[in-house]
Order: sequence, then C-alpha cells, then structure tokens
Amino acid sequence: MRISFEELHLTLSKCLMLRDFSDPRARQCAYVFAENNLVGVESHGLNRFPRFLEWIDRGWVVPGAAPECITSHGSMEQWDGHLGPGPLNAQQCMARAMVLSETSGMGCVALRNTNHWMRAGTYAWQAASAGYLGICFTNTEPNLPPWGSAVPKLGNNPIALSVPRENGQHVLFDGALSQFSYGALERAARRRETLPVPGGFSTSGRLTSDPTEILQSQRALPIGNWKGAGLSLFLDLFATILSSGQSTYDLGQQTSEYGVSQVFLAFSHALIDADAQRAIERTLADLHSAHATADGLPVTYPGERLSQRRTENLKHGVPIDPMIWRQVLNTLT
Amino acid sequence: MRISFEELHLTLSKCLMLRDFSDPRARQCAYVFAENNLVGVESHGLNRFPRFLEWIDRGWVVPGAAPECITSHGSMEQWDGHLGPGPLNAQQCMARAMVLSETSGMGCVALRNTNHWMRAGTYAWQAASAGYLGICFTNTEPNLPPWGSAVPKLGNNPIALSVPRENGQHVLFDGALSQFSYGALERAARRRETLPVPGGFSTSGRLTSDPTEILQSQRALPIGNWKGAGLSLFLDLFATILSSGQSTYDLGQQTSEYGVSQVFLAFSHALIDADAQRAIERTLADLHSAHATADGLPVTYPGERLSQRRTENLKHGVPIDPMIWRQVLNTLT
Repeated sequence: MRISFEELHLTLSKCLMLRDFSDPRARQCAYVFAENNLVGVESHGLNRFPRFLEWIDRGWVVPGAAPECITSHGSMEQWDGHLGPGPLNAQQCMARAMVLSETSGMGCVALRNTNHWMRAGTYAWQAASAGYLGICFTNTEPNLPPWGSAVPKLGNNPIALSVPRENGQHVLFDGALSQFSYGALERAARRRETLPVPGGFSTSGRLTSDPTEILQSQRALPIGNWKGAGLSLFLDLFATILSSGQSTYDLGQQTSEYGVSQVFLAFSHALIDADAQRAIERTLADLHSAHATADGLPVTYPGERLSQRRTENLKHGVPIDPMIWRQVLNTLT
Repeated sequence: MRISFEELHLTLSKCLMLRDFSDPRARQCAYVFAENNLVGVESHGLNRFPRFLEWIDRGWVVPGAAPECITSHGSMEQWDGHLGPGPLNAQQCMARAMVLSETSGMGCVALRNTNHWMRAGTYAWQAASAGYLGICFTNTEPNLPPWGSAVPKLGNNPIALSVPRENGQHVLFDGALSQFSYGALERAARRRETLPVPGGFSTSGRLTSDPTEILQSQRALPIGNWKGAGLSLFLDLFATILSSGQSTYDLGQQTSEYGVSQVFLAFSHALIDADAQRAIERTLADLHSAHATADGLPVTYPGERLSQRRTENLKHGVPIDPMIWRQVLNTLT
C-alpha cells in the first residue's frame, strides 16, 4: 500500500498534536517518522510510531521537554535532553554542533537523558544537507553479547556519518554495529526470508542466516566479529563519558530503553572547498568504475540507494504497512 | 627468540642515527617500533623495520622533516607532514590535538603528506596515557574491494580509539576495517594456520578462511561485509577532506604508499571526572561478568590482552624474528 508523503506526514502530525505536542513540534517530529518511510526505512518510521505513542503515554517520552545546555567546554558542549522526544532533541543538538563548528572548525554536542532518535541517518543527513560533515551515534540497551559470550552486555549502538555532495545526493553511512538491526531481523522473519550473510547465532551457538533463530537467541553477530563488539563498547563509553549520561549497562537496569546518551559531531562547511568537492567526486567515480562480480548488483556508494528510493517514493507514493496504518488512524478517532 | 626491550630499542635507534635521524628523533621513532613488538604486534614492529629503512633510502620517508601547521580553524588544525617519519609526525599531531582540547573540550589535527604510522593504537594509547579520550585513523593505498566487486578501490584504513583507566591498563581498539590486516594474513600464511573466521575471498570468489588464498586474490573481507566497506570509504573521505590531503584513490596512482592522510582527535581529560571513571569501571566489570561460551576464552575488553603481553614481555624479553633481527643487525656493520 502506498500513500502520498504529505498524507503520511499530516496524519502523524495530527496524532502528536493530540498528545501535548505544539503544532510546529508535532510537524517537525512527524516529518522524521514520515521521511524514514520515504527513504525506505519503514522499521524506524511508521512501524515504530505506535510504540512512540505508547512511550509518550507511559511518560518515558515527554512531548514538551526541550534539551538544555548544561556545560560548555568551548567547541564541545554537554546537553540534557530531559527525556524529550528523541528526534527533536537530536535535530536541535546536531544544529548546535554545526553552529559550534563555524568558529572552531568542528563542534560537538553530547546529549544525555534523551530518547530513541529512530534513524541515525536523519541527523547526519541534516548536517550534510547544510554542507557539513556529520557524525552521530547513540547507545542502546544491552542487545549484543561481547565476543566469546552469549550474554547481551553491549548495545548495537547505531552510528551515522555523512559527506555532503553539491547535487544533494549525499554520502551517508547509517548502521548498527550488529550485522543486522533487530528491525531488519524482524522484517526478514515476517517475510520468511533468509539473510544474505549470517547475522547471528542460534540458541545452540551455531552461526545462522535464519532471522527467526537469531530473534529466539537474541544473539546477533557484531560486524567483523570481535571488531564490531569492540567498536560498540567504545561508542557506548564515548557517549556515556562525553554526555555524563547513562551507559548501556545503566539502561539495562531499567524496565525499558529511555534516557539514552548520544553524540553529535560536525565539521564546518568551510572545509568542503572546491578541492574537497573534486576529491569526493573523484573517489565516488572511481568506486563506480569497479566491475561488479558476476552474480552481483552494480557497485554503489553508501546512501546512493536511499536517494534513489526517496525520488521513487515521492513520485509513486510512500510504502506503508496497511495494518499499522489502520492502527495509527484509530488513535485519531 | 627473545631479547630485552632495551636492546631492541637501542639497536633500532642506532640504525636510524646512521640515516640522518637526530639522536632524540632516532630514539623516539625506534621506541614506537620496539614497543609494537613489546605489545605483541610484531607485524608493525621489527618485521616492518627493514622496509622502513628501505623507504628512507628511496626518499619516500624524509628523516629530518617535521610537520607544520598550515591552517587553524580554532580547535581544528590542518598540518602538512612533509613526508616525515610517520610515527614522529603522528605523535606530534596527537600531542597537538590534546593541547587544543584543553581550551575547547576537544581538539583535532588533520595531517596530510605523512607516512605509515605503523600501529594506529600507538597514538590512541598516547592520548589515554595522558588521560584523554583519543581517536585516530589513516587512509591507505587501495587494498579492499567495495562490496559486490573484486577490484580493490578502498583502503582498509585502520582506526584506533582509546579510553583511559586510572590503573594504566587503558581500553584500546585498534583495527583495520578488513577482518584481518595484511600483516595478520601474512603471519597466518607463514605458519600455515587457518583463520578463526572467514577473512576474504578466493580468486574464484568463494569466502575462505585460508590466508594464502586471500593473499593470492588480494580480496580481503571488510568487517560486517557492506558495512565495513562503507565505513572504510568514510574514513578515507574524512581524512582526505579534513587534511586537504591525498585520498586512497590518489595513493593508488603512485608507485607506493607514501604521503597518506591521517586524523587525530582528542577529548579533554577534564571530561573524565570521578563519575566518568566509575562508569568506565562499571561497564568493564559488567563485561567481565559475561559467561564465556563453552568453547571460548574468558571475555576481555579491547586492549586487555595487550596490557598483559606488555607485562609478560617486559619480564621475559620481547619476542623477535631471528632472521629479521640478523637483517637489521647487518645494516649496522
């Protein structure tokens, strides 16, 4: 089922206006969800919206709370999110990191007590759209075992990085440090698909490409085995230390994942001069010149398919899950 | 074969003094090589020293060249390495990033026209030893195919991250974005070992754990498949843009890998207060509490075994390859 982006955006906005969001904040927050469907990441768009509403009702997400600067260290600041809506807190902090980078070359905002931002790529793309290099990462509740164990102690801690392009088709990495996000595993399991590469372990500790087995064991595979497990520990430690916020360990002591810690970094657009733009385009052209293997698709840069899906879905309508759509419409009546 | 750390350090220092290194610079540079053996990374210590000497003789590494600050953007600076010795340039730039972080919370130095720094972890450890959070990464010549291709277009672009601990046993991630570095593949091939997990593709495009097959195909596996390939592109783009330096593509146009681009980031020690230290120790204790799988070793944090090896090798002597040792001694006579 497809609907227009405007209809999706407007409907989600109305839902939020009924829940103590001011009109502009409702529209801004709904836009993040709607745009996630637009670029093909439904798992963090409409599909997660009912849970977002539920968390507002539980008091874990506070609609009217705005983030606050607690300490300034110069080009690096610590903010408190006061449990406000994750997407709004994140956009404000990435915007602030960009402002800080104007005078210092780079800027950093570390944000504590915030909430799930849905898709990491939203905020790195925000930086790229304004001409900046962007980096952001978040910690999560424990959902990934350290290497050599089956007990989840690490988060899969998504990270996004962006490099702007003049044509607006920015380079964007957006990924959890597990080979597949739990959203991706759930979708594959629902569709009874096999994963293209092994994505975790079965309950008996065997590497498997069956998403259902991994959802049962809750033992996802870190990217690069021990390497991704190590990187994930670092993203958690950095987010916790820089924000003076909660760690993955702390989040695991709660009943649910709220009050997470995030980091936003921006490098000034002044660094992306004509030489840098030429270097970016030369590298991407070289990447595109790589012959695909016999069984493979053409080689793309990270974020390339996302730009393609955005264009397609704006034209043909945004794909939505009809059951979840009905569920959301019911909250309006 | 084992020798004392002092003998290894002194011998390498002498070799460098014979090649236009001033005494203090020879000792500082030799220390980096000797310490890599000390912590068990021989591939980037003594084993690579003859090639380092050869590159000095070819003029690709200029013993007396010192890095120079070209542009300051505030807490972020661009430096030119003037093809000086990679380890010396890197130590100076990480030290400068730390100084910048004192007034700004964080500091960044992007360095162009520098040379192979041997082990990324050296410079992140340098930051941690002084009480800072450190991040550094480098680009390399093309040695990793983009996902879906067999043609090397990306670098494996090593990155290191560190978090200081009061007891000096810092947390340290140090790794290339391929599952195994070429140094590790070469060592495993020499010892006729099978890799613990698949590390690349055979010439026929089959995933393999045989290091010899991967060295033949030159098609290493990125960590997390398409994810590591994407991350590696970003490290190259960031290093190239921030330093206005050469990209992996540019390095591929040369006869060899010299004049690479690197980035050094430090977050001020002021951010690691008593609360942060407690959060670090709580997270590491929780990690250690994870039961190992039946067939596995105890769970460790990144860098833990490195600290153990340092202690052991200081006591029992530093392991060295006798053939390479003789080769190095011969350059002194």
